[in-house]
Amino acid sequence: MPGVKTVDFYFDPVSPYSWLAAMQLAELSEKTGARFRYVPVLFAGLLNAHGNKGPAEIAAKREYTFKDAMRSAMRQGLPFQGPPGHPFNPLKALRMCAAIEDDAERATFALRLLDACWSHGRDITDDQVLIELGGEAHLRRTGEQAVKDRVRENTDRAIALGIFGVPTFVVDGELFWGSDRVPFLADYLTGKLHVDEELYRAFLARPRAADRVAK
Amino acid sequence: MPGVKTVDFYFDPVSPYSWLAAMQLAELSEKTGARFRYVPVLFAGLLNAHGNKGPAEIAAKREYTFKDAMRSAMRQGLPFQGPPGHPFNPLKALRMCAAIEDDAERATFALRLLDACWSHGRDITDDQVLIELGGEAHLRRTGEQAVKDRVRENTDRAIALGIFGVPTFVVDGELFWGSDRVPFLADYLTGKLHVDEELYRAFLARPRAADRVAK
Repeated sequence: MPGVKTVDFYFDPVSPYSWLAAMQLAELSEKTGARFRYVPVLFAGLLNAHGNKGPAEIAAKREYTFKDAMRSAMRQGLPFQGPPGHPFNPLKALRMCAAIEDDAERATFALRLLDACWSHGRDITDDQVLIELGGEAHLRRTGEQAVKDRVRENTDRAIALGIFGVPTFVVDGELFWGSDRVPFLADYLTGKLHVDEELYRAFLARPRAADRVAK
Repeated sequence: MPGVKTVDFYFDPVSPYSWLAAMQLAELSEKTGARFRYVPVLFAGLLNAHGNKGPAEIAAKREYTFKDAMRSAMRQGLPFQGPPGHPFNPLKALRMCAAIEDDAERATFALRLLDACWSHGRDITDDQVLIELGGEAHLRRTGEQAVKDRVRENTDRAIALGIFGVPTFVVDGELFWGSDRVPFLADYLTGKLHVDEELYRAFLARPRAADRVAK
């Protein structure tokens, strides 16, 4: 099918917005024909690389973020429970995604994982839960060096692409960050989103007219 | 008119999203009857208080943010030029807003200011531009201690309310952050946004299951 795009979907289940985005992708595939390739990355690695803080690391932002995630879920018609502890260590879940080489199979497992965690309150750091969701064979592979390396390589590639948060979609080198940017991505995929690239580059090249004093 | 709400709109013209939000408020007023009270605050003060970084302070996020702002403008049908330098020092512009005591007059000036800066590329740190947009009398008042104090007090109140970014809307103690949350605010104002407060509080009280190593 000519013109059909593959969109990379960089996600970490620690972020409820990864879940909120993933739940919109079946409809977007239907509408645009786009294929989504799920790319598991470690959000904490992105934060470290960019010297940034996550929303769960700033008290006021943490409070706001979960209210916002619950509102977003409500507007999408999704039940919200949230995991038993947060933030949690997503590494084993990420590695289990990375262990699945087939794109469609990985997407299916990732959706189950995100749904179990955020809609149903399951603990996806627990081996038994991971086995139930994706099978023991995939869980076993999380100990393999090649699988561990894949999550690290994904994260390094994300950093190199300028990705600083999750979820982020990448298509044609264009980034779309956040579950709330799925409509922007939809517009892009259907040829309705146009930005004046020359003006954009010129804007970025303008001087910094003021900066906060470094602390 | 019973049931009509007043919504505080915390903004700083340094953020293009303040502009993108403000441009949606006439329609939202029309639809819900809500009144908006423009509250000028110093975004840098919020960042300092919360130990956070602004999008213009992280290289990859800065690049993304202005692409996103231009896309958002395009989707709202607004011309985008952006200011001649960014970040810029918004303090005089904020004080000039704060010097205007009448809510409707302050809103009108703030809209002109945001539009001049982001749609038309004007330098709102320039006295001549500020005079053209709001008159010399208001500019003169930016030197008064009471006016300077008002911006500081607004910012302190924002921090106390848990506001960490701009624009933020506050109504009934509920926060809505970002121009992309105007539809959430619209749903709230029309009784269509419901969050299970008990679950929300319970979620926030759950343990932190993992944290990044402090750097």
